[in-house]
Amino acid sequence: MKRFFNTRETVVTEALDGFLRSSAGHHLCRLDGYPDTCVIMRREIDRREVSVISGGGSGHEPAHAGFVGHGMLTAAVCGALFASPCVDAILAAILAAILATTGEAGCLLVVKNYTGDRLNFGLAAERARALGKKVEMVTVGDDIALPDSTTPRGVAGTVLAHKLAGYGAAQGWSLEHVTEFVRDGTKRMRTIGLALEDCNPYEPARASRLAAEQAELGLGIHGEPGAQRIALAAANDLMALAARTLEASLPTTVRNTRFALVLNNLGTVPEVEMALLLEAFSHTPLARRISHVIGPAPLMTALDMNGFSLTLIELDEAITTALQAPAQPRAWPGITTFGSPSVAPMPAMPEAFPFTPSHDPTVASLLARGAEVLVANEAALNELDGKIGDGDAGSTFASAARDITAVRDRLPMNDPHQLMATIGNILTQHAGGSSGVLFAIMFSAAGHSRQPWQQALREGLAHMMECGGARPGDRTMIDALYPALEALANAGTLQQAALAARKGADATTTMDSARAGRAAYVPSEHVRNVPDPGAEAVARLLEGLAAG
Amino acid sequence: MKRFFNTRETVVTEALDGFLRSSAGHHLCRLDGYPDTCVIMRREIDRREVSVISGGGSGHEPAHAGFVGHGMLTAAVCGALFASPCVDAILAAILAAILATTGEAGCLLVVKNYTGDRLNFGLAAERARALGKKVEMVTVGDDIALPDSTTPRGVAGTVLAHKLAGYGAAQGWSLEHVTEFVRDGTKRMRTIGLALEDCNPYEPARASRLAAEQAELGLGIHGEPGAQRIALAAANDLMALAARTLEASLPTTVRNTRFALVLNNLGTVPEVEMALLLEAFSHTPLARRISHVIGPAPLMTALDMNGFSLTLIELDEAITTALQAPAQPRAWPGITTFGSPSVAPMPAMPEAFPFTPSHDPTVASLLARGAEVLVANEAALNELDGKIGDGDAGSTFASAARDITAVRDRLPMNDPHQLMATIGNILTQHAGGSSGVLFAIMFSAAGHSRQPWQQALREGLAHMMECGGARPGDRTMIDALYPALEALANAGTLQQAALAARKGADATTTMDSARAGRAAYVPSEHVRNVPDPGAEAVARLLEGLAAG
Repeated sequence: MKRFFNTRETVVTEALDGFLRSSAGHHLCRLDGYPDTCVIMRREIDRREVSVISGGGSGHEPAHAGFVGHGMLTAAVCGALFASPCVDAILAAILAAILATTGEAGCLLVVKNYTGDRLNFGLAAERARALGKKVEMVTVGDDIALPDSTTPRGVAGTVLAHKLAGYGAAQGWSLEHVTEFVRDGTKRMRTIGLALEDCNPYEPARASRLAAEQAELGLGIHGEPGAQRIALAAANDLMALAARTLEASLPTTVRNTRFALVLNNLGTVPEVEMALLLEAFSHTPLARRISHVIGPAPLMTALDMNGFSLTLIELDEAITTALQAPAQPRAWPGITTFGSPSVAPMPAMPEAFPFTPSHDPTVASLLARGAEVLVANEAALNELDGKIGDGDAGSTFASAARDITAVRDRLPMNDPHQLMATIGNILTQHAGGSSGVLFAIMFSAAGHSRQPWQQALREGLAHMMECGGARPGDRTMIDALYPALEALANAGTLQQAALAARKGADATTTMDSARAGRAAYVPSEHVRNVPDPGAEAVARLLEGLAAG
Repeated sequence: MKRFFNTRETVVTEALDGFLRSSAGHHLCRLDGYPDTCVIMRREIDRREVSVISGGGSGHEPAHAGFVGHGMLTAAVCGALFASPCVDAILAAILAAILATTGEAGCLLVVKNYTGDRLNFGLAAERARALGKKVEMVTVGDDIALPDSTTPRGVAGTVLAHKLAGYGAAQGWSLEHVTEFVRDGTKRMRTIGLALEDCNPYEPARASRLAAEQAELGLGIHGEPGAQRIALAAANDLMALAARTLEASLPTTVRNTRFALVLNNLGTVPEVEMALLLEAFSHTPLARRISHVIGPAPLMTALDMNGFSLTLIELDEAITTALQAPAQPRAWPGITTFGSPSVAPMPAMPEAFPFTPSHDPTVASLLARGAEVLVANEAALNELDGKIGDGDAGSTFASAARDITAVRDRLPMNDPHQLMATIGNILTQHAGGSSGVLFAIMFSAAGHSRQPWQQALREGLAHMMECGGARPGDRTMIDALYPALEALANAGTLQQAALAARKGADATTTMDSARAGRAAYVPSEHVRNVPDPGAEAVARLLEGLAAG
């Protein structure tokens, strides 16, 4: 496991200082007690508000420092990686928070149910009380992985407890009221985790305890083994298992209750997969009980654990209001109603043949001759392309010629702009490879131009060059196309355009490096003396038309 | 690489539907064109605003769907994983967005500079123009990894282009004005990436191209190799290298310009490390040129790439204002001034000996005898603990006894509450193991109580039990302590308390499983007939005191 760090001992203080410099931490400060006291605190505190303090070992970011801000925590106490902070650090946070207020409102500690946290926060609370401070403590134990445990672990539900507490504090409630509200809220939460790989707390040699086809259900957030080893499966099946386990843990008294769901990223699951997991959840029976959703988002992580957790919280009006209230911390992902994706109708898409067909013998004959030339040169151009590319240049041009020939009766031949626009449409529908798209761009732009068709083609070429990024001299079909269309735009004949194209195509043989297009990835010695197949195709096409 | 997905083909549509159900996507809808057309769009669009559309291959989340919302994108067109969306999908997005407005404002496409994106967005623009729509396109090429490239790749800077465009649109600027503003902005951006491991686009057998001691500088976001292979090093050194490379690419004309920095998570870097990387950046010479910071946050990721990128943008007043404007998408991390962490002074911490020392011969004698008993039993209790735990229970108690004895002259002996509070302080300072913290909690709480000392101790025990989570019958020291303190609180003598403690300690020998404390992780057959060492210590202490 490769990691970005300097020393294991300095990870936390360096990260906290970085967090304070970040766009998410700018409203915060830290107490001047490094390295023993790592306390992140709001810079602006309402003097009459109850203080809400949480914390625990580090490695669970954004918890807890990421949730400090108006409407959530007043301060967070950060221990070393996966280790509870010491009593004095917690006491310092309590005293600093109370010092920033009138002191009458008091302080609530929200603690995850792990022995170290419970003891150190509990002792800090006692010591603060001994100093005459009003301090209460709520322990969160939302994990249902070990059904017989009398002291379930505190995991992602802890962040909901932060939100409930911060809401009550912001409302100006008394310490007793806030405490009661949070304590009641924590009883309504339950969480289950599922991971494909466990976290690695900066131990280079640590091997995974899971085989390639294994995953785990019911994990904690410190690397302890899951309650159950399960088989790796499709996302839908894994999510169904997690949801079923969670639903089975619900007491019968909540049969008709509505819940909010928290989908928490336990570490390194890519966002695309977290979103997919929420979709998978929506297909489980449990989804019918969910009225609101929070996330998916990282709330309570375990370093690089490749997994997620689901948390349910029973809703009532007060809890819903508290969860919906705005909160300053950027890490709080918000809550919304849980429903079906909103779907809007597709707009009417344009017809490929929007113009009335018409006939023009000269145009028809040019089109036929051009198609004939490209089809006749298919094999030769493929062979040329085989020397420097993937050998399909001839087929790309020939197949475009066939596509246009197949619909010749639907073409508006007596209007050059309509004709060019329609050719653009046909190439769009059938576009093979980059050159098909590039010609589609040229003809679409030319058809849309208000200039005469010769100038319009030159304009179209400019659009093609802008999108494609190639210019004359880059060893592409532009080297033939550009001089040919220049000739036409300057009132030249087809013969003059063909001569210009030939000269341009021949010049590509001596260009020893390609800057764009098919030969850009081929060493120069392989392309020397070979013309660019696209430029050669353009030259042969124009030569064929001019000879007609 | 284990992944949460069902089939590679359905990753994108499943993820987009999940995103629309999430708390970050609730203000959005999708066009009804799955699976070919994956377009995410705002549900509420100002009818007079320029539409801003971006997109590209999926796998870069939150880009681009995550940036759809007021103040950023009107719509995002999502291709398959790492593959450009098709022309018709892009055209559908343009037409739908324009349909939602009066149509006069027009539409700006913001496109990353990759061939597929440039061609497909370019052709879609041409086709929309052919339908009479006003469409402009800006291509972002902010990558500086390949200095000689005439077509640098578009990476994280693209998100800044979204912000600039969305700001201009929200201001009601004309399409020309917005386009010019964004085009100018993209010329002021430059980005470099650094990764410890590349991404894996759902190819189970794909092996890393990097050895254990290697990293890469100058990566794209689609798994293409970095421009330079580098040695794995400390975070500070890797960041210094990335910053130096970026600074070296700055033209001399911007010597005195101020920049904003974007620190982008390329995938799976834990948040604690991203914050640490910002701190590392702050120590580079380049940091002196930075006045504002955006992130760290995931903006433009590459699935599970374990790396970060740095983006600089030259600031002027207009760009600063645009970046600072509020934006609806939750994935936009905001921008703040870049400075030193704010540090607040530590609060005054309490004295360990806040009370005037005093003498009481009875108390002094009890304390001396208690210490004597615990020191005398050190080896025996360690031996007992060795059978079921880590063999240090005796030393923990003896060492607490020695700590208290060492400061006996500073104790307020003639005030039981002050004495208990002070013993709590001493145990806090020297707390060894959980039992030290637990006794510190009990004595602190007892010292703080307003009840007579006997009842106060019982109150303290209740606090200890609440924090520790153990109750009588759980095979802990509570089994001796609880009945003993009950006896004292009920006006019992020390002798009665000692008898109760002994009975409780002896009862632990027949408790075959521990629910809390030291023996909770030991199989029942190992603990049978062995008393809990904590309970035994309490019983021996009280017996010693009672015998005095």
